[in-house]
Amino acid sequence: MQRGAVEGSKGVIFETIPEKLNINLPKTFRIADFGCSTGPNTFFAMKNIMEAVMLKHQSTQEANLQKTTPEFHVSFNDHVDNDFNTLFKTLPPNRPYFAVGVPGSFHCQLLPEASLHIAHSSYALQWLSHVPPEVLDKGSPAWNKGKIYCAGNEKEVTKAYFAQFKADMDAFLKARAQELVEGGLVVVQIPGVPNSKGNITEEKVDSFNLLLYLPSIEEVKMVVEMDKCFTIEKICSLSHPSNYDSRPLDIERTCADVRAIKENLMRDHFGSENMDQLFHLLGQNLQKNQLLYDKVVRQDVYHFALLKRKGDII
Amino acid sequence: MQRGAVEGSKGVIFETIPEKLNINLPKTFRIADFGCSTGPNTFFAMKNIMEAVMLKHQSTQEANLQKTTPEFHVSFNDHVDNDFNTLFKTLPPNRPYFAVGVPGSFHCQLLPEASLHIAHSSYALQWLSHVPPEVLDKGSPAWNKGKIYCAGNEKEVTKAYFAQFKADMDAFLKARAQELVEGGLVVVQIPGVPNSKGNITEEKVDSFNLLLYLPSIEEVKMVVEMDKCFTIEKICSLSHPSNYDSRPLDIERTCADVRAIKENLMRDHFGSENMDQLFHLLGQNLQKNQLLYDKVVRQDVYHFALLKRKGDII
Repeated sequence: MQRGAVEGSKGVIFETIPEKLNINLPKTFRIADFGCSTGPNTFFAMKNIMEAVMLKHQSTQEANLQKTTPEFHVSFNDHVDNDFNTLFKTLPPNRPYFAVGVPGSFHCQLLPEASLHIAHSSYALQWLSHVPPEVLDKGSPAWNKGKIYCAGNEKEVTKAYFAQFKADMDAFLKARAQELVEGGLVVVQIPGVPNSKGNITEEKVDSFNLLLYLPSIEEVKMVVEMDKCFTIEKICSLSHPSNYDSRPLDIERTCADVRAIKENLMRDHFGSENMDQLFHLLGQNLQKNQLLYDKVVRQDVYHFALLKRKGDII
Repeated sequence: MQRGAVEGSKGVIFETIPEKLNINLPKTFRIADFGCSTGPNTFFAMKNIMEAVMLKHQSTQEANLQKTTPEFHVSFNDHVDNDFNTLFKTLPPNRPYFAVGVPGSFHCQLLPEASLHIAHSSYALQWLSHVPPEVLDKGSPAWNKGKIYCAGNEKEVTKAYFAQFKADMDAFLKARAQELVEGGLVVVQIPGVPNSKGNITEEKVDSFNLLLYLPSIEEVKMVVEMDKCFTIEKICSLSHPSNYDSRPLDIERTCADVRAIKENLMRDHFGSENMDQLFHLLGQNLQKNQLLYDKVVRQDVYHFALLKRKGDII
């Protein structure tokens, strides 16, 4: 999925970054991938970004504005439980950049102030930082009756999940605003729901399973505008290349993938003794909702956004 | 051992860094530990360096020369086989710095040009990058007759090992000279032999086992002067706090430690099928030379050097 988004976004990245990157290219150009996982997708994504920056560099060079080629410094971020050993061992040999790993939650500032030129995040912002508290609160109308996902059209649960998505994405943007130089860019790809008109569709409600929130493009816009640190330079919905993943849904593999990503987080909420049962339930749920899952999570669109850090933030 | 050196150097670090650090403190102060292993020693070492920089900051602040407190950015480097997952999981919580991991050989440039203010390396430079080629060459007078260490007073082998140490330390210094700003500092602690008068002592020859070279203070000086990128601001030999490690030598643990550090490197030279036998031989060798090993490697001095990057290097 992620690789599909990386490949699918290449065109729009090549087109928008050289145009929208209006800073003087520094001697050391710093890029970071937030939620990089263990590779190799992150290496392809970083390569695309660097090539796009080099397009910009070549055009300024032709105009005789800049002579020296920038050195690239790439920070690979993911939470502390990510397997950085594997990431480091699979870094491309002879890579034309300096590579570092940055452990920690991307909802917090992870790099020094005004030290970054482009922040990238692909297929990571849909994961919520934690179960919305209301969903776990018996006294709340959003109380999810012991389930860990939202199986029907339960409005209060939906509201709680969207509030959590908003809070998480806002924290992400505020942290990046600290790290980025004025005029620095944020490139995000988030899997989402298509054609949303601001209504909460039944499909979307179902996609909340396991702390996943798939926003509409309007919701992404709303969060960026609310945050006030960035201008939206480009936003669009893209489809995966149709031939990218035509294999049928492998439920066992999907459960294993989700477990790898979320087990640590879920253990804190539900206790380690419940993990096997919980992921067994997930498998059953996926089996029951196979068509829906295929349609919403696997086959549908993702949102691409290019944001520019404003100069007048407080 | 390393922890002893970290604690033992604290005084000289607090005394020399505030005096010798003659750069304007930047908004982001960047420090790197080269050969950091998995912690916690590296965390104590970095803490000492930061406190010494803050002493400098406080004195400039009192003189009204500088107002804002610098942010610290710490790069933890070790080779790609180091366990960065453990390093990251044990990073001090609420640490007052941004932390990144940098995989790769410190004999190469690992960070962007002129991006670093202080480079630190403790108990790492004594490990050679590879077996000197002459030692493995049957036609050479330094051919070590199938042994992987130097068991006696074999002058040619000694010469080959020192040449390798020189080449490695020179590569280390050249790489740091690229990374450091003008006036930036290098702080190194290297276990060594005491009271050397330029002669190769029998003890030293024995300490070559397994790609380890313990230099004299004159040899360290010679390599730095040859390199031409740094001025020596302070160099001295220090002893471990006498009560630091009074336990008897644990041969099994020592073999396991060495194996953890060097197995990957040695596998390339000797073949993975020979590793068990090789470390068994090391155990026997340590048993036979227990007193000597205790004296040279465990109880003796280490050299402390503070170097400053010159401004006029080519």
